[in-house]
Amino acid sequence: MTAVRPVCVIGLGLIGGSVLRAAGAAGREVWGATAAEADVEAARADGFTVESTVDEALVRAGAAGALVVVAVPLPAVDGVLRRVAELAPDCMLTDVVSVKAPVLAAVRRMLPRTRYAGGHPMAGAAVSGWPAGSATLFDGASWAVTVEPDTDLAVWREVAELALDGGARVVPATAAEHDAAVARISHLPHVLAAVLAATGADGGPLALTLAAGSFADGTRVAGSRAELVLAMCEGNLNPLLAAVDDALGRLGVARGALASTGSLRATVTSGNAGRAALQAHRTGERIPTKVDLTGPRVHEELAAVGRRGGWITGFQADMALAELPFPMATPGT
Amino acid sequence: MTAVRPVCVIGLGLIGGSVLRAAGAAGREVWGATAAEADVEAARADGFTVESTVDEALVRAGAAGALVVVAVPLPAVDGVLRRVAELAPDCMLTDVVSVKAPVLAAVRRMLPRTRYAGGHPMAGAAVSGWPAGSATLFDGASWAVTVEPDTDLAVWREVAELALDGGARVVPATAAEHDAAVARISHLPHVLAAVLAATGADGGPLALTLAAGSFADGTRVAGSRAELVLAMCEGNLNPLLAAVDDALGRLGVARGALASTGSLRATVTSGNAGRAALQAHRTGERIPTKVDLTGPRVHEELAAVGRRGGWITGFQADMALAELPFPMATPGT
Repeated sequence: MTAVRPVCVIGLGLIGGSVLRAAGAAGREVWGATAAEADVEAARADGFTVESTVDEALVRAGAAGALVVVAVPLPAVDGVLRRVAELAPDCMLTDVVSVKAPVLAAVRRMLPRTRYAGGHPMAGAAVSGWPAGSATLFDGASWAVTVEPDTDLAVWREVAELALDGGARVVPATAAEHDAAVARISHLPHVLAAVLAATGADGGPLALTLAAGSFADGTRVAGSRAELVLAMCEGNLNPLLAAVDDALGRLGVARGALASTGSLRATVTSGNAGRAALQAHRTGERIPTKVDLTGPRVHEELAAVGRRGGWITGFQADMALAELPFPMATPGT
Repeated sequence: MTAVRPVCVIGLGLIGGSVLRAAGAAGREVWGATAAEADVEAARADGFTVESTVDEALVRAGAAGALVVVAVPLPAVDGVLRRVAELAPDCMLTDVVSVKAPVLAAVRRMLPRTRYAGGHPMAGAAVSGWPAGSATLFDGASWAVTVEPDTDLAVWREVAELALDGGARVVPATAAEHDAAVARISHLPHVLAAVLAATGADGGPLALTLAAGSFADGTRVAGSRAELVLAMCEGNLNPLLAAVDDALGRLGVARGALASTGSLRATVTSGNAGRAALQAHRTGERIPTKVDLTGPRVHEELAAVGRRGGWITGFQADMALAELPFPMATPGT
């Protein structure tokens, strides 16, 4: 283990603010900066160090050898990376943006020599801003940490340690695999929730009176702040298109079956199976395993842990401690 | 007010079992019957009277002038109505099936002289059976009570009183309007949840690991018992087809916009508006009003209360006490 590295968080909204708190609660030296004046005041009022400008925070990061965490929406990432390139080019770098391939591409383009591993904690998007965050937001959550064939494993481990500080499960994945997965389980749910909310409301006041649990649950994330949803969905264009096409195909099949045979059995059965797979994945037996971080195929081995439905729970000397689902518990392995 | 009428419930699953408990808790004489042996035992163990057969329960209803509540799944309704026709043809009749036009048609066909008003309490479908029910299941829920131009208002009021006994809001609606509304806010959510669950699970174990709140919420009702979902959705064929077509159109527009312009703004904005309409409807100001049950246009006035997003909260002499949303609070009025 190295000495505990300081953490500099750029962007202090729900996620960035929670990273700052969690890292601080784990005993690290932490500071941040944000362009959102309200979040500056709120974070300072809670006793955290917020530098006056992003530049000042990055200069300090460069001097302290801090891990820099980019926690701004995707459209603002390039601007922050430009400042990192100038003021903290040797710092280890991660981010918490909800899509990973575009950030990876931006880092490669703008900071070709920076040591980077992307991150994505899977935690709430329906509320935003510093006051909505907490040190325990990531407790028990999955936190993807990207691993490419050329990822510096020392950086990967530092980013994973940050996630573990927050109580998260570290899920190794390539940026491309991450983006394809979240298109299905995070971005498509937002699109379908929007479609359902609009279709339901078009039923008029009687429909809204009769709306109960299924409609309330199915439309909850349609109440998320539009700018956050748009940044996330539009930033994952091609994977989301593939997921939407899959859903369109399934919905079309349901429509056809209902119209021609009056039956929705295939649709409902496949939905039952999908939901059962989620439950089995969450509650199924887990098998502990290890990945040797000095091994010759370690990058591929880490990615395989995520691909097989596993995660990293900690480190021991040069080993990453992992948990894998019991082979029969999930389909598609 | 008449003396409090006894209640006979046929079918003692989640909904029927809860109706029996709620009516009993309100001080009525109650008994039931069900073909499901497990529910017979469970209800008796909880101290309720369960007759040995549906026929015995209906004979007793006929003798006592009870209100008969049909609480079996749609495919079993015809069979129960046949017994009602033979054994309790003069009883007031209601049901708690989730679609109303098919039940109304069956009653008109099989019991042309029976005094009937359909009902549909908007409460949980993800669990089932007597043990899942409770006397408070309908507390604060909407309970549609159908009103057609030829509905006997004395029956309508008896059924409404039963719903009020359970703490529900009584929502008057024609069977056709009810079915169109629930297609959008109850049946379509089940179809979309099934599509989402299947599409997400197809992403494999990594997708299931990364699945968080949006996927869990969006797929919750995909875990409902398939037979219940199929009975409900397939029993509402044409209204559900219209709702699915509406959703397919919106999802297709989202797909096209994403592919051609990279933007989901129109989709996300309309989803935001739909969700906001739901919130406004639930929390908005309410204006008390009354419907004179002896008036010349009372059937239409009752249906208009539901159509405008209102409900009945009680009765006072010959007046139904209603609450309507403040006119600006909901769109589409």
